[in-house]
Amino acid sequence: MPTRLDVFIDRMVSQRACLDFAIAETAQMTGPVYELGLGNGRTYHHMREKIEGRHIYVFERKVESHPDSTPPEELTVLGDVMETLPAILVRFGPVASLIHADLGGHNLQKNDAFARKVSPLIEPMLAPGGIMVSSDRMYFETLEELPLPPGAVPGRCFLYRR
Amino acid sequence: MPTRLDVFIDRMVSQRACLDFAIAETAQMTGPVYELGLGNGRTYHHMREKIEGRHIYVFERKVESHPDSTPPEELTVLGDVMETLPAILVRFGPVASLIHADLGGHNLQKNDAFARKVSPLIEPMLAPGGIMVSSDRMYFETLEELPLPPGAVPGRCFLYRR
Ligand SMILES: C[S@@+](CC[C@H](N)C(=O)[O-])C[C@H]1O[C@@H](n2cnc3c(N)ncnc32)[C@H](O)[C@@H]1O
Ligand code: NI
Ligand code: NI
Repeated sequence: MPTRLDVFIDRMVSQRACLDFAIAETAQMTGPVYELGLGNGRTYHHMREKIEGRHIYVFERKVESHPDSTPPEELTVLGDVMETLPAILVRFGPVASLIHADLGGHNLQKNDAFARKVSPLIEPMLAPGGIMVSSDRMYFETLEELPLPPGAVPGRCFLYRR
Repeated sequence: MPTRLDVFIDRMVSQRACLDFAIAETAQMTGPVYELGLGNGRTYHHMREKIEGRHIYVFERKVESHPDSTPPEELTVLGDVMETLPAILVRFGPVASLIHADLGGHNLQKNDAFARKVSPLIEPMLAPGGIMVSSDRMYFETLEELPLPPGAVPGRCFLYRR
């Protein structure tokens, strides 16, 4: 049986592998990147260092990240994603080149219920060719699920493309 | 430049590699195991699943771990390790087969200052042959530093043996 440490390592390693893949695949796109859930800011820090020439908007209820991984105010979308996602869609349209979501806690059932609720709000935000990286299985109607890149562990990360 | 995500993954992977090595090396010993710093409880959970026939005592100021990674009360040593380590040494003597310390935060200078302070309190607690695994470089006078096992990243974990 994997321990909590094993599962956690697999999740972080898979997140990085999927992010690096998605960043490379969308490198020619110019639309913004959306980070849903800032938390400690580690994946935000990773994206900021690896993504050039695109804005990274961070959607978070309450900013509590490490100081060196805190987004500038003008790229922070404060509030519940159930409200801020539709609001940003109205303002920007379907322009996102990359969306990363890591919104879950340790209650797997709650995470799945939330993924079902938030999927239809995320789905229309991607530009054609845009990629979504998620720590939870999402419930999209029109996006294609992509095979995981080498190094990612099945079930620990999910990839979708418009 | 490694990102914060890279550094974090390296630390967790190194912790696991060093713990697995130390657990195997001390498997024939019967003295207790000490976990210094419970945190979320991921490394405690890992040790609990992998260690048989030895008690694991957890030293922590304030227990705030995940419910399934919370030690029983009789194996929890509540308080500042600067006080609880000497108290347990008086009660148990130099009997520990394995000590794991992950007491630091993200301030590297503070972590190093604390490692200097706590090293002389940890050093006398190990039984002969006992191993210490640390996320910070320690300052021991009589323990031997061991080479890292495969998979561990230099600088992210340290191993010492009496
Ligand atoms: C980085 S966390 C440990 C994480 C843990 N290894 C895990 O995998 O979840 C560090 C913990 O050490 C505890 N700690 C730090 N200094 C301490 C001290 N002087 N005495 C007791 N506990 C301390 C903190 O309360 C914190 O919970
Ligand atoms: Ni849980
Ligand atoms: Ni810092």
